[in-house]
Amino acid sequence: MRIIVDTMGSDKGCAEITKGVIEAVNEFGIDAIAVGNAAEIAPIVAEAGLESRIEIVDAPIFVTMEDDHNVVIRGEKSKSSMVAAMKLLSDGKGDAVVTAGNTGATITAATLYISRIRGIRRAALAPIMPLGGRGGVLLIDCGANVACTPEYLLQFAYMGSYYMRFAVKNGGEELPRVGLLNIGTESHKGTELQQEAYKLLTEAHEAGTLNFIGNIEGRDIPFGVADVVVADGFSGNVCLKTLEGMGKLFGQELKRIMYASLKTKIGGLMLKKDLNGLKKQLDYKEIGGSPLIGISAPVFKAHGSADAFTLKNAIKQSIRYVEGDIIRRITENIDKMKVSR
Amino acid sequence: MRIIVDTMGSDKGCAEITKGVIEAVNEFGIDAIAVGNAAEIAPIVAEAGLESRIEIVDAPIFVTMEDDHNVVIRGEKSKSSMVAAMKLLSDGKGDAVVTAGNTGATITAATLYISRIRGIRRAALAPIMPLGGRGGVLLIDCGANVACTPEYLLQFAYMGSYYMRFAVKNGGEELPRVGLLNIGTESHKGTELQQEAYKLLTEAHEAGTLNFIGNIEGRDIPFGVADVVVADGFSGNVCLKTLEGMGKLFGQELKRIMYASLKTKIGGLMLKKDLNGLKKQLDYKEIGGSPLIGISAPVFKAHGSADAFTLKNAIKQSIRYVEGDIIRRITENIDKMKVSR
Repeated sequence: MRIIVDTMGSDKGCAEITKGVIEAVNEFGIDAIAVGNAAEIAPIVAEAGLESRIEIVDAPIFVTMEDDHNVVIRGEKSKSSMVAAMKLLSDGKGDAVVTAGNTGATITAATLYISRIRGIRRAALAPIMPLGGRGGVLLIDCGANVACTPEYLLQFAYMGSYYMRFAVKNGGEELPRVGLLNIGTESHKGTELQQEAYKLLTEAHEAGTLNFIGNIEGRDIPFGVADVVVADGFSGNVCLKTLEGMGKLFGQELKRIMYASLKTKIGGLMLKKDLNGLKKQLDYKEIGGSPLIGISAPVFKAHGSADAFTLKNAIKQSIRYVEGDIIRRITENIDKMKVSR
Repeated sequence: MRIIVDTMGSDKGCAEITKGVIEAVNEFGIDAIAVGNAAEIAPIVAEAGLESRIEIVDAPIFVTMEDDHNVVIRGEKSKSSMVAAMKLLSDGKGDAVVTAGNTGATITAATLYISRIRGIRRAALAPIMPLGGRGGVLLIDCGANVACTPEYLLQFAYMGSYYMRFAVKNGGEELPRVGLLNIGTESHKGTELQQEAYKLLTEAHEAGTLNFIGNIEGRDIPFGVADVVVADGFSGNVCLKTLEGMGKLFGQELKRIMYASLKTKIGGLMLKKDLNGLKKQLDYKEIGGSPLIGISAPVFKAHGSADAFTLKNAIKQSIRYVEGDIIRRITENIDKMKVSR
């Protein structure tokens, strides 16, 4: 397997991402293509002695976090590392793309240079939150689509289910439990979008093709009542970032408490292992990346502030996405995801 | 001051709410009207020796949590304790209503029997989250209005500001910092609703009547970057319940860790005071209730599972809302909150 990595445009820079590539190649036995500033990448790869395993593609132009997502369409940045990586994937030079660059540009570039799966209306970002045990909770969509139709949400539910079942939980027999993010459990709750999506998801459940458990509320997500949480990109993003913020708050507060006095330092030492486990449960580095699910080849978006460890984990996820054959599964079941009007 | 309390229809029942009324009367030196099942209320009031301070209005019919919000309009439940309480307030028999009953029914009953402030398009639920120090963070709206217009959000911003400034922070000189809940900080982020609201809020900021600090994301809310967070009722509710769920998760996990072994029990004892402080920071009981802001008389909604302590705190908030003269302040400034079409 060969993973294509866009090494440019993230917060921590090309060298840090390249280190993640090296760790992944060593740990998972894959090959890689490192796309970016060759002058910076080459010495790091040489030092690791991985010239035969990591191909370097020179593309020093890059999309910044501040760039509009449309810069990848034309002009100088249509030659950026991100676009080069997408084109390599589209040309069959590798099995997946991983990038920690600008999210909007990633979506635009993937849609334009690779295209969506035929019949899929919108690609969605679907990160896994390390909550509730049992492999975590998938939240789909988390910001790729601020305005959604009920059909999009139905498609998110199916795509999220295939991903969780065959790439995250390794082909379990059971259908993942799908919940619809809403503001109450009754079927009439929410806006027209949630009300209509509820009906579509119920029909799919009755057909036995989805395991729809109904509406779920933000307060239930941390307890893992669903494996896949379906949401429009706006409220999904609000939910995700609120989870993230609370995780960060608790990490900070625990640290502050443990260093507050000699007594709390000693107490903290006695609880260290368990408290670290709790912190780890909310550490987004553990999870790595999010697939841009619905694109016709595997594209993974790692957090903009990803370090080498996070990037390595995003690569691991992309490997499992390829091995789980997620795109074929979605393609073969596309008829279930169409809503006739 | 006299606070009218609907003692019926909450999860913990009439006796528990009545105990909260008694605590509030003793602690805050107010009078009260307890509306509900007189046969249950009277002995509790008599035992406390507060017959002269707490008037009892017999209204044993009540709205359940499962009832549709429209039951208060006609039929048997238009004679329920909740409606009786609203009518007493409307008739000037007290200064505020506090209820822990059905949220939807509370909004419908308040709108119907008391009415909104003239010029206010929608009433909003605005709980204070015990986050970020500095008196907490107000989240407005949290579920009263799933579909909003930019004008509603502008009005929420003003109403939330008056409430925070004059009832929560006791008339501070500074304008509270108002943030718009969004999925990124740039002005073009979000749906059309957020984009348009951003413009209105910016105009108000430039006029010096609001302190609009821009878009804020879920991850920033726990750190208190804004005093007032403006949201449509859907995403506001998602945010609130996600905060609530994460608070609950951490409380449970800390407890589990502290009882895991003898070693962690000892460590837990040494950290007890600080960890309890952390738990308290996320304990919604500390805050009590949420004003139904925009109604022309003070109506407070306490959590459905409120105990006596929570109910007492909701009463305290309603007292400060009355003393802060919030409704007069909104009424006098209504022209700033109108959007010409």
